[in-house]
Amino acid sequence: MRDFSRGIQHLSINTATVRKQLPLSAIIEACARRGVPAIDPWRDQVQAAGLAATARQLEDAGIGLSGYCRGGFFTAADAAGLRAALEDNRVAIDEAKALGAPCLVLVAGALPGALVGKPAFKDIGLARSQVFDGIAATLEYARQANMPLAIEPLHPMQGAERSCVNTLEHALDICDALDPDETGMLGVALDVYHVWWDPKLEAQIARAGAKRLLAYHVCDWLVPTCDLLNDRGMMGDGIVELKKIRALVEAAGYTGFAEVEIFSEAWWARPPDEVLDTCIARYKVVV
Amino acid sequence: MRDFSRGIQHLSINTATVRKQLPLSAIIEACARRGVPAIDPWRDQVQAAGLAATARQLEDAGIGLSGYCRGGFFTAADAAGLRAALEDNRVAIDEAKALGAPCLVLVAGALPGALVGKPAFKDIGLARSQVFDGIAATLEYARQANMPLAIEPLHPMQGAERSCVNTLEHALDICDALDPDETGMLGVALDVYHVWWDPKLEAQIARAGAKRLLAYHVCDWLVPTCDLLNDRGMMGDGIVELKKIRALVEAAGYTGFAEVEIFSEAWWARPPDEVLDTCIARYKVVV
Repeated sequence: MRDFSRGIQHLSINTATVRKQLPLSAIIEACARRGVPAIDPWRDQVQAAGLAATARQLEDAGIGLSGYCRGGFFTAADAAGLRAALEDNRVAIDEAKALGAPCLVLVAGALPGALVGKPAFKDIGLARSQVFDGIAATLEYARQANMPLAIEPLHPMQGAERSCVNTLEHALDICDALDPDETGMLGVALDVYHVWWDPKLEAQIARAGAKRLLAYHVCDWLVPTCDLLNDRGMMGDGIVELKKIRALVEAAGYTGFAEVEIFSEAWWARPPDEVLDTCIARYKVVV
Repeated sequence: MRDFSRGIQHLSINTATVRKQLPLSAIIEACARRGVPAIDPWRDQVQAAGLAATARQLEDAGIGLSGYCRGGFFTAADAAGLRAALEDNRVAIDEAKALGAPCLVLVAGALPGALVGKPAFKDIGLARSQVFDGIAATLEYARQANMPLAIEPLHPMQGAERSCVNTLEHALDICDALDPDETGMLGVALDVYHVWWDPKLEAQIARAGAKRLLAYHVCDWLVPTCDLLNDRGMMGDGIVELKKIRALVEAAGYTGFAEVEIFSEAWWARPPDEVLDTCIARYKVVV
């Protein structure tokens, strides 16, 4: 297992972590000042900052990407919505390409409309079928663009609103069905927050292997957790066995970044320098 | 599939549903007035009302039990805690017996201390091992008492604090390991709230079959869900495919009650007669 205590060459910062304090350009500057080698920016942040300007700033700063957040949301109430989702994912792939991302992270989508409290239907089987078809279609474009897709299984508590792919096993089943030859173009983004509870985690990480493990995200699960979306913990403040899970991931062949992704009203309320310095300190000791 | 629209002979009310409005004796009276044939009471409510008095009142009212809530919480930080949990489960079995319950519902327990924000350890594998051993030991006593044990897998969002058994598959794996002959003494309590999201739900319900399906609980999953414990929805108000899941359960051979169990600050704030009447109305139409 890699020794993270000596440096941060395998650290990436997901830019959602300080999104409420800073615009993307300032986040990149703050990361550059600290020698953080990679980030994972969100599409809305990139759009606000400008795609070309962001790509230039990253290049000038010598900062790479560990992924690009995010494509997906393939489900819809009608055919026009399904088509629009595919088109949007093609644009996301183009953006990821322009930024030099190693993969586009996919949050599958769930019951259309549920995110705003108005689900168009309750049929999670239909949603899963739409997701499968959406990934299949997007994979064709991704292969042409040579941009790997990383399906991120989300915690089951987000299964109605954000993703109906809620276990690593389910994500890998999709990968095996659509990319049986393990070309490297379809895999998973594994976030400890979403999967720490899974009794099959160890077996499914081993099943995934290096070919499918395209990204690895860390934060922590707090007890109590007071919000289903924005109460993630800083690494070390919760109950996730971070070193044990990283050992499994690395034993499976993963050699990429450990990306810190914290959605937290509490951390968004703190000075961004303090947040980033804490991410680095915890990365070295508890990740 | 049974027709629920014509009567409530398969309805049970979990007494947590109106626990903040009424003491147990008044809940039993309110159920009796409505012809509800069964309830599932909680241990603390029974202790407050008195075990013998509750058994008498139930008998006089002609109300049966669909289960008894709850045993479990097998995990602990030390040997004394593990022993105390086993002793408490034997007492719970005796109580269930005195009340004529068809099964004792088990909520396995998770990281000891996590429920009060002070986890004694983070090793979920150890917690699962303690749960396995605890169920094994309790099953011996349960066999002597002829009181079936129903493991209730809880939603993964409750995996740190309340139960480290979070999927039907995991619960059934425990059943198969400890009761390979399907004696009827070990099975599961299936609550739609905890399992609706599971991509393996259909297959695992079929695997469970009549011998393992000892209880079936209904409520709904709201979008948004605003609290990890006390924001369950009334049937029909959320996104759970209630009729589809009941069809699977009945196709697997289940013939027991549909037990309404709603933990909800919103419903606890309403008059208990309104809550119970709504449970009955929704049971007939959407369950």
